Amino acid sequence: MFAERMDRVRSAMVAEGVDVVLLSVGAELPWLCGYEAMPLERLTMLVVPRDGDATLVIPRLEAARVVERPEVFGLLPWGETEDPVAEVAKLASTASSVAVGDKTWATFVLGLQEHLPSATFAPASRLLGPLRARKDDAEIAGLRAAGAAADKVAAQLQGGEIALVGRTEADVSADLSRRLIAEGHDHVNFAIVGSAANGASPHHHASSRVIGPGEPIVCDFGGSFSLEEGLPGYCSDITRTIWTGGEPSAEFAEAYAVLHEAQAAAVAAVAKGLPCQDVDRAARRVIDAAGYGDRFIHRTGHGIGIEEHEDPYIVEGNDEPLEVGHAFSIEPGIYTDGRWGMRLEDIVVCGPDGADPMNKADHGLAVVDA
Amino acid sequence: MFAERMDRVRSAMVAEGVDVVLLSVGAELPWLCGYEAMPLERLTMLVVPRDGDATLVIPRLEAARVVERPEVFGLLPWGETEDPVAEVAKLASTASSVAVGDKTWATFVLGLQEHLPSATFAPASRLLGPLRARKDDAEIAGLRAAGAAADKVAAQLQGGEIALVGRTEADVSADLSRRLIAEGHDHVNFAIVGSAANGASPHHHASSRVIGPGEPIVCDFGGSFSLEEGLPGYCSDITRTIWTGGEPSAEFAEAYAVLHEAQAAAVAAVAKGLPCQDVDRAARRVIDAAGYGDRFIHRTGHGIGIEEHEDPYIVEGNDEPLEVGHAFSIEPGIYTDGRWGMRLEDIVVCGPDGADPMNKADHGLAVVDA
Repeated sequence: MFAERMDRVRSAMVAEGVDVVLLSVGAELPWLCGYEAMPLERLTMLVVPRDGDATLVIPRLEAARVVERPEVFGLLPWGETEDPVAEVAKLASTASSVAVGDKTWATFVLGLQEHLPSATFAPASRLLGPLRARKDDAEIAGLRAAGAAADKVAAQLQGGEIALVGRTEADVSADLSRRLIAEGHDHVNFAIVGSAANGASPHHHASSRVIGPGEPIVCDFGGSFSLEEGLPGYCSDITRTIWTGGEPSAEFAEAYAVLHEAQAAAVAAVAKGLPCQDVDRAARRVIDAAGYGDRFIHRTGHGIGIEEHEDPYIVEGNDEPLEVGHAFSIEPGIYTDGRWGMRLEDIVVCGPDGADPMNKADHGLAVVDA
Repeated sequence: MFAERMDRVRSAMVAEGVDVVLLSVGAELPWLCGYEAMPLERLTMLVVPRDGDATLVIPRLEAARVVERPEVFGLLPWGETEDPVAEVAKLASTASSVAVGDKTWATFVLGLQEHLPSATFAPASRLLGPLRARKDDAEIAGLRAAGAAADKVAAQLQGGEIALVGRTEADVSADLSRRLIAEGHDHVNFAIVGSAANGASPHHHASSRVIGPGEPIVCDFGGSFSLEEGLPGYCSDITRTIWTGGEPSAEFAEAYAVLHEAQAAAVAAVAKGLPCQDVDRAARRVIDAAGYGDRFIHRTGHGIGIEEHEDPYIVEGNDEPLEVGHAFSIEPGIYTDGRWGMRLEDIVVCGPDGADPMNKADHGLAVVDA
């Protein structure tokens, strides 16, 4: 699998005229070789020349953690008093076109530029983004397992198994996190709980606010799920909106019906070859028509895979066509400052005949008397 | 406090001839303005010109999370279809010398270089590292509180309150993590549990290996502790080695006595004006003399503050003098491949009269019958 990905990367390097790819922290490295670099001031960097063997330059301390795959890369451990940037620069010394992993720390990029003054540097995502965005079967299986696990937690939430009223948002967030782990996630990436006015801030996390009865709550949670130890995990990401008891206000229920329709319209729009922005437009059209357009204040979605957010982005201005294997969120929202918010999110994969949803938890506004 | 730090940064900019400082993800931003950027593909960046007001360029979605400090910085929110790199470049357009935060993603650094082709870029740590390394009283109070909380968990471990034999390393790691939170940490950074041969890999995390009786375990754990909501947290980081029941082997006990002496010697060596590498040498001298030199395979320590690892590094080759307010770990270790490891770690602050230890948990080899 990793050898096959390495072949695809080298073909892309030939096509794009890239001499060397340098990958450090972030998802590109585990996607390509199965190893995830620790985000440390001690540099880990995979050096992939267009011709010749790939080498993982790694702190000697970390070398024991590497699952060796000699058919994909060799190891070059460095000691505490050596300069790893110089080691990488030596391996890349003949390169004139360098692609460097998107999240590589500035300090290493600038160090490499000093060592390779005549080389031009570009983000590796230009090369790897399109390859990583087309998920293969193993990756879709990972996303599906992650989605199913998140669905179980969503069903527990919608079914009233998670107490809400009288608890703080932070408490509920910790509860959601524990349940994500219990359903098989390796770690939790986030568990947003935004009650009442806090729901109006899309990236509000969770506070010490105590949830009351008759309130809306935006719950947006996900983690990383690995089907096999030693292989990279794939992410879940789901949002459901809950009403805590009694009849939802007419204003909220009306807006939710619009949101529900908008999300379904965007899912239905997904088709091979469709520009990404058209999925955004499909959701926005419904929300605009109902008069809530100025309250849908973010893009419709983001790609997902090893990373929570990656290509392709479902946003106005992205006219790249959807391809089979693209995996992304569809998550429109409506936000009324100072009062309430709502969001509805699934992960879908673009299949040959349209969207293949990774999430199937109920899409309605769940009323929970708990 | 933040305004005072901003003044110190501007003075350093004048001294070093830096025109603009650009800070994104990482600890530099919360240190300077109290706000921590989310590690997202949506750029957050503080633009600090040498003259004129500082501006936080921030995704509109995140703007609500910012505690505004208009005396320190203004806000420039950007919308989903705008280009934040271009916005930052506009604010920095007259700069010829740019200092960019060390962990800023490569993709943003390269984008900024395209927009500002005649500017030279350097890592911001050259400017901010020395300032951040000298902790002020508020920071030392944060480190002391974090250390005291970690000490409580260490005492529980050494006192046999945490069951070890028959549990997996991962279980014990989760237990340590819960206790760090229970003692007031906001989040856990790591909880390494390396039993028997796993202890020989200094960065082994925690596995499904079941801990047996009569085994050594390296436990290295820490988190981030904030004295006040909305202010950046400061890190704890402590390592203690435990023997699970019965008499430790003579070989292990002898090596531990050497380790204990080495760690104490390094703490005793700390003095204002002493080169950092001399603290490393003080520990290494003891271990070398006892014949374990080739098994002490890492530096003696790292600076600590808002980040787990920051300046100053206690390593051969770092001849920078210790200053009052420098905070760092002292953590020698001895590792026997395939068999066992041991490490002993405290955080200390360099005071006017030597080391001020943030950790006071017992330094002996604790034998725990549990």
